[in-house]
Amino acid sequence: MALVHYPVLNRRGEVIASAVTNLDLHDLARLACTYEIRACYIVTPLEDQQALVKRLLSHWHEGIGKELHADREQALRRLRVVGSIASARQSISAEWGREPKVWVTSAREQENSLTYPRARRILEQEDGPWLILLGTGWGLAPAVLDEADGVLEQIRGIGAYNHLSVRCAAAVLTDRLLGMER
Amino acid sequence: MALVHYPVLNRRGEVIASAVTNLDLHDLARLACTYEIRACYIVTPLEDQQALVKRLLSHWHEGIGKELHADREQALRRLRVVGSIASARQSISAEWGREPKVWVTSAREQENSLTYPRARRILEQEDGPWLILLGTGWGLAPAVLDEADGVLEQIRGIGAYNHLSVRCAAAVLTDRLLGMER
Repeated sequence: MALVHYPVLNRRGEVIASAVTNLDLHDLARLACTYEIRACYIVTPLEDQQALVKRLLSHWHEGIGKELHADREQALRRLRVVGSIASARQSISAEWGREPKVWVTSAREQENSLTYPRARRILEQEDGPWLILLGTGWGLAPAVLDEADGVLEQIRGIGAYNHLSVRCAAAVLTDRLLGMER
Repeated sequence: MALVHYPVLNRRGEVIASAVTNLDLHDLARLACTYEIRACYIVTPLEDQQALVKRLLSHWHEGIGKELHADREQALRRLRVVGSIASARQSISAEWGREPKVWVTSAREQENSLTYPRARRILEQEDGPWLILLGTGWGLAPAVLDEADGVLEQIRGIGAYNHLSVRCAAAVLTDRLLGMER
């Protein structure tokens, strides 16, 4: 899984680099740990943002955070800071000896999107690795969607409103793909 | 739904009032709006915390926030600040003309817990209202669990690790109970 801060859209539809949100790191690390997702890449090309994430991780890995919250330290070990989506892909390729298949998420309806039941069957039946990209801000830039191997269908609730936070969307998506059979 | 800040446990198992987290309010409001949950009660007896929540809501309801993010303003209208779980129950009773059935959540295994498929059937087949209590901190105090009409089974991922954030747990729970049929 990767939480992408660039390239994403802002509310005017412009491509930007978004700021890292502290709670996203904790939430996605704990989610990855709960559902046995191998790694969660934090993608940002901004060096000050990379430094911020690394400082946060060192607090939990080495500091007082580790003593008080051993379960958080364990979870945060799944996070990896990288400068680009390409770097995340390369890291996975190096580890697995083959390229990951890249799936993207979007809060908007996309053509030929993968339904969750179908995506779940693919994960069960085909060899990995997979990389699922989650966009911050107002979502992944169109170029990222165009280059992906698959687009997961938008997460719909009940009404027309469809603006989950990336934390909640990641949790629902992960549970639908990897959670217990229902 | 109610996000409970008192009575909850701290990491030493003591009953405390936890601090309100800004992002919880946004995430739960957006979740409630997406899945058509009528209201999300923010339960805290601490007056400064109540004031904090009200100030935040007024920023989004009246200030610059409303202009920039109309979709957030719409979501945050589902939040209601109350001083106790009893107040949330009374508010629901007044609105519906009957007492809500109260379900609680726990990250720990509980006896006679409701599985999600069973809870989902009950929601579909029986008359409401329901009130689902989510604990912050290290979870709801035992007295709250004891008084509930039902305990939802713990959310399990794949491994032994089971420490989702309350935001992610709320999202998974809501999708399992109210999301599209799979």
